[in-house]
Parts: sequence; structure tokens; C-alpha cells
Amino acid sequence: MNETLYSAIKELKNLAGSKNIAYISSSELARKMGVSQQTASRIILELIKEKYIDRTIENRRQKIMIQEKALDLLYRELNELYSILKINQSFEMEGTVQNGLGEGKYYISKKGYMDQFKEKLKMEPFPGTLNIKINPEYENILRQVRGADGIIISGFKDRERTFGGVKCFNAHIDGIKCYLIFPERSVYTDIIEVISDKYLRQALSLKDGDIIKVNVDFEF
Amino acid sequence: MNETLYSAIKELKNLAGSKNIAYISSSELARKMGVSQQTASRIILELIKEKYIDRTIENRRQKIMIQEKALDLLYRELNELYSILKINQSFEMEGTVQNGLGEGKYYISKKGYMDQFKEKLKMEPFPGTLNIKINPEYENILRQVRGADGIIISGFKDRERTFGGVKCFNAHIDGIKCYLIFPERSVYTDIIEVISDKYLRQALSLKDGDIIKVNVDFEF
Repeated sequence: MNETLYSAIKELKNLAGSKNIAYISSSELARKMGVSQQTASRIILELIKEKYIDRTIENRRQKIMIQEKALDLLYRELNELYSILKINQSFEMEGTVQNGLGEGKYYISKKGYMDQFKEKLKMEPFPGTLNIKINPEYENILRQVRGADGIIISGFKDRERTFGGVKCFNAHIDGIKCYLIFPERSVYTDIIEVISDKYLRQALSLKDGDIIKVNVDFEF
Repeated sequence: MNETLYSAIKELKNLAGSKNIAYISSSELARKMGVSQQTASRIILELIKEKYIDRTIENRRQKIMIQEKALDLLYRELNELYSILKINQSFEMEGTVQNGLGEGKYYISKKGYMDQFKEKLKMEPFPGTLNIKINPEYENILRQVRGADGIIISGFKDRERTFGGVKCFNAHIDGIKCYLIFPERSVYTDIIEVISDKYLRQALSLKDGDIIKVNVDFEF
């Protein structure tokens, strides 16, 4: 990542606020960044090309729309600083218990995954996942968690097909130790999957539609 | 701040760990940063010149010592990301109640400060400060707080002398709203000063040597 682009993304996101929309001319960006207007125009074109921002002209003003890729970049930088500075963090998110489709059980039970869970998470997970739909107001925390380095469970092949890698994060729900698991390659979703050595639905007396809090713990 | 230096500082601090000492050759740094060895050597010289790091040669190895200025830089970047991403944070620190010298009362009572406290903090502080010596294990949190943007109380002159600016931070102790105040120009100290519209010693039944927790609240 080009560091000038990083600085520009910070400036633009700062102006854009939570709506992720900023109205700014290249000359204003140039002034804020302490570069020439030519350089600022070039930076904006580069950011568009790299899909960090999108741009339209509205009433003769340049409208910059911050894209998901730029937010990911900023949260990754934040996570990197946490890691470098050894800042432990616990993130709380709230969500609603979802009806599982039994898919989790199929995946968890695969030997290629199970052996790694035992080795890397030091536990034998209950064969199934608790699915939680995270409330929209925790979107940014979810983005930050997703962008962090987790415990990596590698992908593998069996006779039938290929299984992708999974990233796990230490977490707890109501004092019960568990892990968030994310497919390494996944499109954005607000549903998270949780595994534990306990049958969480039973241990926490949960039913579909219940609202619960999940705490994700980062220790460096 | 040159962004290449920032990247180099991150690499070096990451290697240095909590002892802030790293053994690394210029060629290793070059490889990690994806730059030429010449560039890496130049970066190291620049970091020494700017007092971000110090260097000695020990048993033919280059010993890099991370300096306070580099740590400040990293914590400032962290704070900037909190501000840009509107991440509210509360930092807890523990410390010991100190014997005050009555100095705080002298300063707080000055009209030049008092008028600004009323206007900017929306309260009339009790004329005196509660001094707390922060435990060493909270040193990094204190560093981060000190490096953040606070509520600025400007310096002023009266007939006798000049009074420096002060930076205030929202905080609370045992549920009582208060403010940490830092002289804008101060050498590093592990003693913090707290003001409140209440006489904190009385309100919290504190005596010298008591151990208490302070929470500093950042809202963006």
C-alpha cells in the first residue's frame, strides 16, 4: 500500500464522517495534505482506480464516496497498531440468534477442520454453529474484527471437494468461552458463526430471535 | 511526518517489543519494508537524526533503541484513527492518591483559568486538584491519553507572570464526573491531576496512599 494513498484516505474519511460522503475539490485536498494540486488530482484518480473511493460530479461539486475497501484499510491499520503496541481489546457486539441450517454441523464435523480445531483451539467443538445476526449499529466493530488477524485454520481437499480456510477469534458469551469463525474468503455478511466445546443453545438456553451479546477478545 | 519513517518506526517497534530494543541490520529492515538496502540505511540515519531511535553497535550487531518520540508518534496515529473512525474509548488506569502541595489550588483559582473552565467544561471546579501517581503498568495508557487531543484551556498573562495552556480530558472516578488536566508543556510525569466541581477527597473519602481507578472517556 502506497503511504500517500493512506494519508489521503484518512483525510477523506475524516471529512466524509459516518455517511462516508465528502464534497471536496482537488485543491482543498491538496491544501490539507500539503501537496500540489496536480498531485492531489493524481491521488484521487489512483484512489478511484484502486476502488478505495468512487466519485461523481454533483452541482459542479466533486462528490467522493468512501468505499468498503478504504474502511477495511483504516481498520486494518488500527489493528496493526493494536498488535504492535500490544494493546489488548475486547469488542462487544449485540445480535439476534438465527435459525441455523445445519450447514455448520456439516463443515465442523469434517476431519480436515476438526483436527485443526483440536490442535489450534485446544478444544473439540460441538458439531454445529450458533448463528447470530449482528445489529447494524455494530457494523464497524464487526468490520474491525473481520479485518484482524485471527487463528488460521487451513483449507484442505477431501475426495469430493475443496474446503476453504477459516479464521477464528477468541470470544465469550455470558462467560462461556467460544470462537467466532469466518470463512477466509467470504463476501460481507452481518451473520456471524460461533463455535464452542459446549452446545451453546442448550448451555445458554437460547432460542431463535433471542438477543445476545458476544465479546471478542484480542490479546497480543 | 514522512510516511516512510512512520512505516519504519512500526517495523522497528514491532521487532523491539515491550523492551523497546531491536537487533536488526539495515538489510533486514530493507527486506521487511520492501526497499533497497541503501534506502533502509538512509531511513535509519534519518530516524536517529530526528531522535525517533538511538543506535549502538553491540558485538557487531546494530542495536536499535526506540525513543519516547517514536512511541508518541504511534499512539498519536492510534488516536487519529479513533477520531476519524469515531471510535469511543474509555481507558482505565490505577494509581495511588498523593499528598498535594496546594499548588493546584493556586493555579485553578486564577481567573484566567477559572473563566475558561466554566465556559469550556461547563462547571466551576473545586479549587484544588487530586493528584494520583499512576502505577507503572498503565504507563502506555497514560502515554496514549497524554498524546490525544483534549479540551484546550489557553495560556494567559497576569500582572506577575505567564501561565501556560492546559489540556483537559473527560474522566470519571467511581461514577463522579471529573477532568484530567495536563500542562500543555510538561516533561513526562506519572502523576496526574484531576479536577471536579466536587471536593474529590471528601466525596470519595480518600486519603493519601489510597489506591483508586480513574477512567478517561474519549467520545468523538
